[in-house]
Amino acid sequence: KMHKIAVIGGDGIGPEVIEESIRIVDAAGKKHGAQFDWQRLPWSSENYKKTGHMVPPGGWELLQQHDAIFFGAVGSPDVPETVTVHGLLLPMRRKFDQYVNLRPAYLYEGVPSPLKDKAPGSIDFLVFRENTEGEYAPIGGRIYEGMDADTAVQVSLFTRRGCDRILRAAFEAARKRKKILTSITKSNALTYGLGLWDDVANAVAKDYPDVKLRHLLVDAAAMDFVRKPETFDVVVASNLFGDILTDLSAMVTGSVGLASSANINPEKKFPSMFEPVHGSAPDIAGKGIANPLAAVLSSALMLDHLREESCAAAIRQAVAQVLKEGKTMPPDLGGKSKTREVADAVLAAL
Amino acid sequence: KMHKIAVIGGDGIGPEVIEESIRIVDAAGKKHGAQFDWQRLPWSSENYKKTGHMVPPGGWELLQQHDAIFFGAVGSPDVPETVTVHGLLLPMRRKFDQYVNLRPAYLYEGVPSPLKDKAPGSIDFLVFRENTEGEYAPIGGRIYEGMDADTAVQVSLFTRRGCDRILRAAFEAARKRKKILTSITKSNALTYGLGLWDDVANAVAKDYPDVKLRHLLVDAAAMDFVRKPETFDVVVASNLFGDILTDLSAMVTGSVGLASSANINPEKKFPSMFEPVHGSAPDIAGKGIANPLAAVLSSALMLDHLREESCAAAIRQAVAQVLKEGKTMPPDLGGKSKTREVADAVLAAL
Ligand SMILES: CC(C)[C@H](C(=O)O)[C@@H](O)C(=O)O
Ligand SMILES: CC(C)[C@H](C(=O)O)[C@@H](O)C(=O)O
Repeated sequence: KMHKIAVIGGDGIGPEVIEESIRIVDAAGKKHGAQFDWQRLPWSSENYKKTGHMVPPGGWELLQQHDAIFFGAVGSPDVPETVTVHGLLLPMRRKFDQYVNLRPAYLYEGVPSPLKDKAPGSIDFLVFRENTEGEYAPIGGRIYEGMDADTAVQVSLFTRRGCDRILRAAFEAARKRKKILTSITKSNALTYGLGLWDDVANAVAKDYPDVKLRHLLVDAAAMDFVRKPETFDVVVASNLFGDILTDLSAMVTGSVGLASSANINPEKKFPSMFEPVHGSAPDIAGKGIANPLAAVLSSALMLDHLREESCAAAIRQAVAQVLKEGKTMPPDLGGKSKTREVADAVLAAL
Repeated sequence: KMHKIAVIGGDGIGPEVIEESIRIVDAAGKKHGAQFDWQRLPWSSENYKKTGHMVPPGGWELLQQHDAIFFGAVGSPDVPETVTVHGLLLPMRRKFDQYVNLRPAYLYEGVPSPLKDKAPGSIDFLVFRENTEGEYAPIGGRIYEGMDADTAVQVSLFTRRGCDRILRAAFEAARKRKKILTSITKSNALTYGLGLWDDVANAVAKDYPDVKLRHLLVDAAAMDFVRKPETFDVVVASNLFGDILTDLSAMVTGSVGLASSANINPEKKFPSMFEPVHGSAPDIAGKGIANPLAAVLSSALMLDHLREESCAAAIRQAVAQVLKEGKTMPPDLGGKSKTREVADAVLAAL
């Protein structure tokens, strides 16, 4: 089967890590009988500076014709985030109703954690981040800008439907794993939005009597991600808390250079999008030293979504092998290997 | 000079750790010529269940007559947070305009960090948390509760004045230290409220040309608190981000059992309040095993505020000595000593 994939390398290290991942996916596909039609879209800050648009006219419709979107990163020091992040990344998550942002946390063998005494595999959980509403609702405004009376409001919007669907996705995942779901809020302080979230969590829990639901405040969760990350199985959190906690989980499992993510529309009414968590990293862009493995592992999440599970498994195993051998490690994991060399090692392991 | 202190032990381990701290402050005062008049107020969840109010009529006026408030914690499994947290703790911070929530992070000798390779003293920074507005503004609401259309809004409110004053407090502190101030936002996603914050930070920076201002996103900050906490000097953050990051900084410096805080009204128009960060910890309440040192170190912050700097310094040194010797460690620091024994060790060291 031929899968049509829209590719947006974007800014900074985005294109570098995405191109390496494409080589790897093609190789895995060749072995396991899957084919990919990659349509590269030049949407980026550079392109914006030339054309005046981040997404060209008809761009969203074009994406809609694809089975998935493979995304690098956007963000550039010389283009405002209102253009890059708010012109492409965040509207994509919302327009395509990619309400599940799945971010796995796993401590691979061969990867040192900054935490003491953590065995390989001991940290192994999934974060389900709500991805369309909550704190990231594009609602708010500012008045008296620059004056003494300067005031801004930023509105978080939570709906029962929005909480229900991400919680159900997380409960389903927990059911297939160790059956422990931790729901993160800060409803002791933020009673309105996150009070609703808690209520919905308790209601949905009734449909999953086999799953243990734990409530945890985000500040305590930040501590527990450091103190005892091995106690988590599936974690579900609002948009902002999911953002913060998944950077933290990336760090305790060694590096954001290994953190993959899937932005999923489970109903498949819209294309889902797969991206490394790390962002455009302008400081190391163009040097060929970015760790491609977060993008490679994101491609594995894409392959799962496309029901090419054997391709996905093969890629994950190849990545695990490269990390375990430790001979081809990128700088963020304490090695000296270049982006291309790390990808070559994965290809060899495939 | 006699200092009039209102004491609210509150719930759970609150009263246990506060009473031990009072013994220590009295001893330090005796040595350094300071006197304290402690007025114990029984405000707590238990008291609420008996009397129907968390703060009795005239309670706020009573507090206003004191030089400082020494606070344990509120929060009990059987009383809603709308009563405890929203009836006492959060309104106190706002009513008394305690807009600076100062939370030091320091890795003491003898205290193991969960992070690898961190030398004593290598982690040493101050967090200035905005404490009266932002994400904690008590603004929002909910409609269609329990129905399909259930929707909640939670409004963060940021003002130029509110940002300006916490940023100036942080710049002043940075000026007296290593002159590096890190301002935490998430203005790439939350453009309204935190966009205003960034603007004010850049404006205030002009008055502090000797201080280096760095902007850092909260997700990256969570990573850096784990990856390289030794690079921070003074950190300034909004109410919510300050909350999350200070639990994280407590963890990387060993335990929330050592995390102290000051809720300061710098103008001294209203009393300032001093509390350990840990909360009421109902699971260990009444067992006599809580670590009293977060409360003891909070009392040192109170003594600084009361200009009893030699008392404060003596207490800090005694705590540092007890930790360094390591003979009397509470359970959260890997020891077996009881609350009382740890306090006795500090008294002996005094
Ligand atoms: C109890 C809670 C509302 C409080 C806060 O979030 O401010 C606590 O976590 C703290 O850090 O003082
Ligand atoms: C770029 C930014 C807006 C984005 C987010 O906060 O969602 C990023 O940090 C992420 O985690 O995907």
